[in-house]
Amino acid sequence: MSDYSNKPGRLRPAPENFLSAQQIQQVQAGRRDFLRRAFASASAAMVAGGAVNAYADEATAQDEKIILNKPDWGTTLGRPVDEPPYGMPSKYEANLVRRISPGLAAVKQANVAFAPLQGMFGIVTPSGLHFNRSHQGWYEIDPSQHRLMIMGEPGLVAHPKVYSVGDIMRMQPVSRFHFIECGANSAMEWANVAVPTVQYTHGMVSCSEYTGVPLLHLLQDCGANLKGVRFILAEGADGSHETRTIPMSLVLSGEVLVAYGQNGEMLRPENGYPLRLVVPGVEGVSNIKYLRRIKLGTEPFGAKDEVLGYVDLMPDGKLRQYTSLMECKSVITSPSGGQVLLDKGLYNVTGLAWSGRGRIKRVDVSFDGGVNWHRARIEGPVQNKALTRFNIPWVWNGRSAFLQSRAVDETGYVQPTYEQLRKVRGTRSVYHNNAIQTWQVEETGDVRNVQLAHS
Amino acid sequence: MSDYSNKPGRLRPAPENFLSAQQIQQVQAGRRDFLRRAFASASAAMVAGGAVNAYADEATAQDEKIILNKPDWGTTLGRPVDEPPYGMPSKYEANLVRRISPGLAAVKQANVAFAPLQGMFGIVTPSGLHFNRSHQGWYEIDPSQHRLMIMGEPGLVAHPKVYSVGDIMRMQPVSRFHFIECGANSAMEWANVAVPTVQYTHGMVSCSEYTGVPLLHLLQDCGANLKGVRFILAEGADGSHETRTIPMSLVLSGEVLVAYGQNGEMLRPENGYPLRLVVPGVEGVSNIKYLRRIKLGTEPFGAKDEVLGYVDLMPDGKLRQYTSLMECKSVITSPSGGQVLLDKGLYNVTGLAWSGRGRIKRVDVSFDGGVNWHRARIEGPVQNKALTRFNIPWVWNGRSAFLQSRAVDETGYVQPTYEQLRKVRGTRSVYHNNAIQTWQVEETGDVRNVQLAHS
Repeated sequence: MSDYSNKPGRLRPAPENFLSAQQIQQVQAGRRDFLRRAFASASAAMVAGGAVNAYADEATAQDEKIILNKPDWGTTLGRPVDEPPYGMPSKYEANLVRRISPGLAAVKQANVAFAPLQGMFGIVTPSGLHFNRSHQGWYEIDPSQHRLMIMGEPGLVAHPKVYSVGDIMRMQPVSRFHFIECGANSAMEWANVAVPTVQYTHGMVSCSEYTGVPLLHLLQDCGANLKGVRFILAEGADGSHETRTIPMSLVLSGEVLVAYGQNGEMLRPENGYPLRLVVPGVEGVSNIKYLRRIKLGTEPFGAKDEVLGYVDLMPDGKLRQYTSLMECKSVITSPSGGQVLLDKGLYNVTGLAWSGRGRIKRVDVSFDGGVNWHRARIEGPVQNKALTRFNIPWVWNGRSAFLQSRAVDETGYVQPTYEQLRKVRGTRSVYHNNAIQTWQVEETGDVRNVQLAHS
Repeated sequence: MSDYSNKPGRLRPAPENFLSAQQIQQVQAGRRDFLRRAFASASAAMVAGGAVNAYADEATAQDEKIILNKPDWGTTLGRPVDEPPYGMPSKYEANLVRRISPGLAAVKQANVAFAPLQGMFGIVTPSGLHFNRSHQGWYEIDPSQHRLMIMGEPGLVAHPKVYSVGDIMRMQPVSRFHFIECGANSAMEWANVAVPTVQYTHGMVSCSEYTGVPLLHLLQDCGANLKGVRFILAEGADGSHETRTIPMSLVLSGEVLVAYGQNGEMLRPENGYPLRLVVPGVEGVSNIKYLRRIKLGTEPFGAKDEVLGYVDLMPDGKLRQYTSLMECKSVITSPSGGQVLLDKGLYNVTGLAWSGRGRIKRVDVSFDGGVNWHRARIEGPVQNKALTRFNIPWVWNGRSAFLQSRAVDETGYVQPTYEQLRKVRGTRSVYHNNAIQTWQVEETGDVRNVQLAHS
């Protein structure tokens, strides 16, 4: 049904992308001499003598060849500084792209392009790699032909208004880093499908610096009866005309944004250009793209995607509804499924943690499937409802290992095991899976997605 | 000589990009009715009645037309989610690109592509818009054919080593936001050339989240005599083989990075892929791209670009040398030169502040050329040696106004006026201009670059 292959070529495990197929073969055959070599020659000899030749005996033939080589980039004029006017990644990074699993949806317009978490660093998701889940495809909306209307049920809005994009860009903005995660991220894992890579297990989460106007300011500008409003409906201008109910409490906190900026420039078309709602901590579908209307009301609106979709089937057969907050979660992004450890020794184990309830407090990592836990180092500053990067060193001894990460947020909530989550939620959910992920490093160095009986 | 035009099309002032030429004409002719309208109709009528028609009398004909219109994006299937695999900005943003001033250098490989600060938000510079200053053009280096050698003068390095990119990516990384500013940013302003836009006055500063290994760790890995080393030389693998001296004190602080990651993905080719040095707070030329060699020493190395270039000619005729730290600076990015205010009323005045000495403490903004100052709101978290975004509301009354920003860093250093700077540095410098920038808003709404006699 679904196709999770990674053509063309394999995923990058550090440092696979930087080695030839021949080199990988050499390593796997036990020849590790091109990794992390020390030169025994005295440094004095290097400086005084023929430099490169002075340590030739200690360096590999390949090192020597590379160092003595005069590549084009060291001997020629490079490319003009303004070419291209909008820059792109290196051609050697062509494998690090968003990928789709064609079987997941009948048409590519209602599918998901997953973000390649396995090759990413820090907390910023480059906008070109932001995951893209759509119900009806993405659009190039002409911003001069776009309006945002704010209106409401009787008595809730004194002055309903229509805003142009320029109107909104003249108001006082804020800029904040937030993650957006699809409610269905890690969905296949409920049924233990064990899709092979972190791109497909967790690649529906991304993080951007958003710039926009707090929706609260717009409601005040319209003379909204803030105490009377209990829920708002947000609606998109695109073909799916997605609608979602958002509790007014979130709007009153000032955190809900009408955003136009993403990572320093305007939103990308597939992320809602020219306006999208950003509802920090809440599942992606509520972060309405191509935002065209906000309606104020007093009851939940019961939209299609809060009645038929984005609900959880519980063990007792009832549907769990309006549970849009994304609970605390983490995942090791490297090493991760589909990658290969080429030899024993030191690795950097790295990953991401996030919580819809606030800041990440700590992340622990286990190398033995949850028996022993080690505190990971967190990259600061830790931000509210944003991805948080963690790193921890690990020496692989060549034997089978089970890598896990477990995040704790500032409320004290601890990311659950599958055993704990299934005890409460059963096995028939699709959405809101925040369980601990396990990657097995096999003796061959291959990393694969597994679920352990006890976790 | 230099060409600072902005073909194709004018710069974006909010909201010019979102209005047609006809609309701009209407505004300039005094018809402002399509900006920020309130509808007098009661909201009850809107909900109960025919919705759109209920407020037709209050909305403009254009609003009504847009709202009643059924555009393609509301009635058709959009584009597939995985198209393209690496996303790009909207076609409506084609004007927001890096730009070159052809006359600045004899060949385009030794020129500058300036970042379009006037249309940017927050603190992240999208990697595709990061300014690009080069001495010999940029290159697509094959990462499998790249090595970093660490060596030194006699007695300073016990184990000189050669690292592959993969070797470095296996070590413990850090991720930090830092600005990089060319030492020659704002150079033309010394002579009061008054280039027309902020892209050309200040567009050689950008900010990224860098991921890499502290150089200190690599030196420790090589058994460097940390107490004996006083300076290091960094060298690039590209055609210019740029070399620069960096004080060891900066390396010992742990802040100097051998970086491979930029904004979540690998460095862009024009920014040094696969490895560059990041020397936070220090002028761009020291942040060696395509880093291939580090040499440890005891004296400054007197490289070409610290003897012939990147020196300041002082009033007494002497050259000021090795002054690579970028002092506290700020600039209003919008409204800024080349933009047009289309009508009176409320605007968001926004800009960037940064300091090579640490964090920004405060930013003040003046609307009358430095007579009165108002404290701007700073977007947090404020980070060490990173761009910092400020915003402040301003009501334009239609008369001539002189906009300035003045930053203060955590050391208490206050950004100087031109008068103050020239008193110390004279008028013959090219580098290290951090004076307060003035934008005049003329009665027509046009914004231009000026220097006031007293500031």
